[in-house]
Amino acid sequence: MLIVGELINTSRKAIKPAVESRDAEFIKDLAKKQVEAGADYVDVNCGTMVFNEEETMAWLVETVQSAVSAPLCLDSPNPKALEAGLALVKNGQPMINSITGEKERFEIILPMVLKYKAKIVGLCMDDSGMPETAADRLKIADKLIGDMVAAGVPEGDIYIDPLVKPVSTGDMAGVEVLDTIYAVKQKYPKVHGICGLSNISYGLPNRKILNHVFMIQTMVKGMDGYILDPLDKTMMGFVYASQALLGQDQFCMNYLTAHRNGLYE
Amino acid sequence: MLIVGELINTSRKAIKPAVESRDAEFIKDLAKKQVEAGADYVDVNCGTMVFNEEETMAWLVETVQSAVSAPLCLDSPNPKALEAGLALVKNGQPMINSITGEKERFEIILPMVLKYKAKIVGLCMDDSGMPETAADRLKIADKLIGDMVAAGVPEGDIYIDPLVKPVSTGDMAGVEVLDTIYAVKQKYPKVHGICGLSNISYGLPNRKILNHVFMIQTMVKGMDGYILDPLDKTMMGFVYASQALLGQDQFCMNYLTAHRNGLYE
Repeated sequence: MLIVGELINTSRKAIKPAVESRDAEFIKDLAKKQVEAGADYVDVNCGTMVFNEEETMAWLVETVQSAVSAPLCLDSPNPKALEAGLALVKNGQPMINSITGEKERFEIILPMVLKYKAKIVGLCMDDSGMPETAADRLKIADKLIGDMVAAGVPEGDIYIDPLVKPVSTGDMAGVEVLDTIYAVKQKYPKVHGICGLSNISYGLPNRKILNHVFMIQTMVKGMDGYILDPLDKTMMGFVYASQALLGQDQFCMNYLTAHRNGLYE
Repeated sequence: MLIVGELINTSRKAIKPAVESRDAEFIKDLAKKQVEAGADYVDVNCGTMVFNEEETMAWLVETVQSAVSAPLCLDSPNPKALEAGLALVKNGQPMINSITGEKERFEIILPMVLKYKAKIVGLCMDDSGMPETAADRLKIADKLIGDMVAAGVPEGDIYIDPLVKPVSTGDMAGVEVLDTIYAVKQKYPKVHGICGLSNISYGLPNRKILNHVFMIQTMVKGMDGYILDPLDKTMMGFVYASQALLGQDQFCMNYLTAHRNGLYE
């Protein structure tokens, strides 16, 4: 299981002013808290800072690395911002979010994946747009995995993101993702799955409950990576409970440790 | 989805004295509350009343039927108690919990299933004892389904209970159940799955969380019946959230209704 802590993202209200004012203590504290809560990777995303994203990404990477030894997930639509951050990485193996099947994006991101020996999120979309069905997604995943492996990316460094769409826009939105991740894991056992969770509940009430349930559901189908808020104790509790019930936690040791550490209220 | 409300069970501390003193109002109230909370069936189980189980079962069946129009699930190890209750059934199609692959049990329960045209819980155990693996369970399910269908029981009336054992006694206890229910649904699409949830968490802390997560996990694999406490609002909320995310709730209507009815806090 790979947990990417999602909180350092300038699209979040509390984060933007802290980043704009270069409040290093705030960012360092948030990085530390996420790692302490169980994040394996710390996501840094300043995609909203369109006028100085490269400089902001560089500052964020250095600031986070001065606080924690956990590796970073560099998350941006802008390849230059990714490169600016990657050049400064010192903490272990970085992760890039994301490559897609879009020809231009693929060609510009792939060399960075190889240069920095990065883990890579392969998002299921391509030049024909956003996929509808699991079959559409699997086709994109097939090409992404095939092309990356042919270029020398190890299967184990690839994290397929099935592209989660709101269930409020289509009753089968969740099922298509579940079917995709199952199909990918069946076909490529070494390839991982990853996704964010909040898209699924967009437009519906009680969003947290839907996000929690969808995490549990996707884990059953083989998803083994999440971009989530590790400070959400309920979510993390469900991760450990799911692992215990899925035979991924010998003697329920992690579950029992989480209990002793007060993760469950 | 078929929800069997489990609360009227004399093995529960609060219930035993009410049944012993023939407190009809208490039992009627508990039956009503469960149906109002979403129970499709009301379970009646007085298996602890070994000295007068037949008479107690008859009283329970009549008492519950005087309060609600929902059908009953008659739950007993004692065939005579089942027969005593079944003879009094007026509310729709009864359910019997359970038949097993044990030769003696099978032969005594099957005629009741046919006589009362009952739904039947087929518990995965036989004369060789309690199964370990999914393959062992599927073998028992195969025989149970085959023999019942040959005798004239409609597939749609059969609810296979994979026999849930505590994950504290073996890391794979949950996985074997998940694999069983998936295999049964693949092989017999009209046959249903059902289980209780509390066994899975026996011996571990934070049992409710494990029970909730296991419900969500088993639904992903095709389970469509549960014997549970419908007054557990969190559990029922997860049932509706799961249905919405699994494409079983058109336009999320039931989920939204549950939200409006205050099921989520």
